[in-house]
Amino acid sequence: MNKYLLPKTIITDVGSTKEKTNFVIEKKLKKGISWTSSHPIAGSEVSGPENGTKDLFLNKWCILIKEKKTNKKHLVILSKFWKKVGSKISIMNSKKHDLIFSMTSHLPHLIAYNLVKTATDFENQQKYELIKYSAGGLRDFSRIASSNEIMWRDIFFNNQNNILKVIDLFIKNLQLFKKDIKLKNNKSIIKKLIDSKKVRKKIIKLKQDINKPDFGRI
Amino acid sequence: MNKYLLPKTIITDVGSTKEKTNFVIEKKLKKGISWTSSHPIAGSEVSGPENGTKDLFLNKWCILIKEKKTNKKHLVILSKFWKKVGSKISIMNSKKHDLIFSMTSHLPHLIAYNLVKTATDFENQQKYELIKYSAGGLRDFSRIASSNEIMWRDIFFNNQNNILKVIDLFIKNLQLFKKDIKLKNNKSIIKKLIDSKKVRKKIIKLKQDINKPDFGRI
Repeated sequence: MNKYLLPKTIITDVGSTKEKTNFVIEKKLKKGISWTSSHPIAGSEVSGPENGTKDLFLNKWCILIKEKKTNKKHLVILSKFWKKVGSKISIMNSKKHDLIFSMTSHLPHLIAYNLVKTATDFENQQKYELIKYSAGGLRDFSRIASSNEIMWRDIFFNNQNNILKVIDLFIKNLQLFKKDIKLKNNKSIIKKLIDSKKVRKKIIKLKQDINKPDFGRI
Repeated sequence: MNKYLLPKTIITDVGSTKEKTNFVIEKKLKKGISWTSSHPIAGSEVSGPENGTKDLFLNKWCILIKEKKTNKKHLVILSKFWKKVGSKISIMNSKKHDLIFSMTSHLPHLIAYNLVKTATDFENQQKYELIKYSAGGLRDFSRIASSNEIMWRDIFFNNQNNILKVIDLFIKNLQLFKKDIKLKNNKSIIKKLIDSKKVRKKIIKLKQDINKPDFGRI
């Protein structure tokens, strides 16, 4: 598309990973043309325009990427655009973006996929239908694990380095959790479970979720 | 309470683990008295009667435990009771129960706790607020990870053996997932992600969840 682009053309994307794509874009883009990357933290497990809603971006974060090369004027105009559709703006560089979302989005999705895979393997091992009893926890994970496979493969591959690190951190913590259960370490388990509740309270306070039990489920 | 109990007294519980509690109950219970154990698969992350609703058990599974010693008459009456409040009945022994729910309920809760713990550790490491961006996945896990800590400690300790096994299965799968990301094994990743979607469809077909994107969230 290079030949159709002008220095004043505002170009953006809504991708979930930034470092690697920015590297490719910088290499391919004609000199003098600016690309300003966006990542609206909105949407669900379904893809495509048919699943859009008018309030999709309302009160949701939109991350805008700022690097040394970023066109400041374009960044200001793009900020205004995202605010107009209801988003809250946060500006950071690609590196920080990919690090943060490896933890808050990419790892949770990977874990959800892995849990559903583990349940399926277990069901096959036991030769007994058990997924039908999934109301007690597995259900919500299965929603997240039904997201678009092409998009998530690309996210996992593009943000490989950060994701490999957070997987290791997750496994380290899981080994400690396992040890606590094995040794019936009451104090350590109770601390873990209470600390989780505090994070939940923080998420609700930050208006990232609603303080209503089993929200949307009953 | 032994001295107040009669052979015709119907006694039940609604606990989440069965093998160990049944062992303790059998030991303590006066001869000739029957205990018939129930596990309604209903409820949310909040506890206590103040969080009850009239439809709490409607179309939800209720597992009834049947062992050699189980009083068949009591089992029939208890089945009728749970059906009256709207439940679907499934009858199995304690061993099977604890095995199934280690996978469909106990492991998902443990994983949710572990993910929230990992995110907190990561936030502290990075010295950068990131939990506020939790809309993209972490949010739903944090709801599950805000469940009652005393109840969940007891579940983890009582169903220790099954839980330790499913943790190992989960870690084994996670190591394979990690390897696929590291080697960019396209075919294997795509298969995993597509298989997850099939499980989701099964869960919806079994009426364990609703086929509406981001249900309750938008």
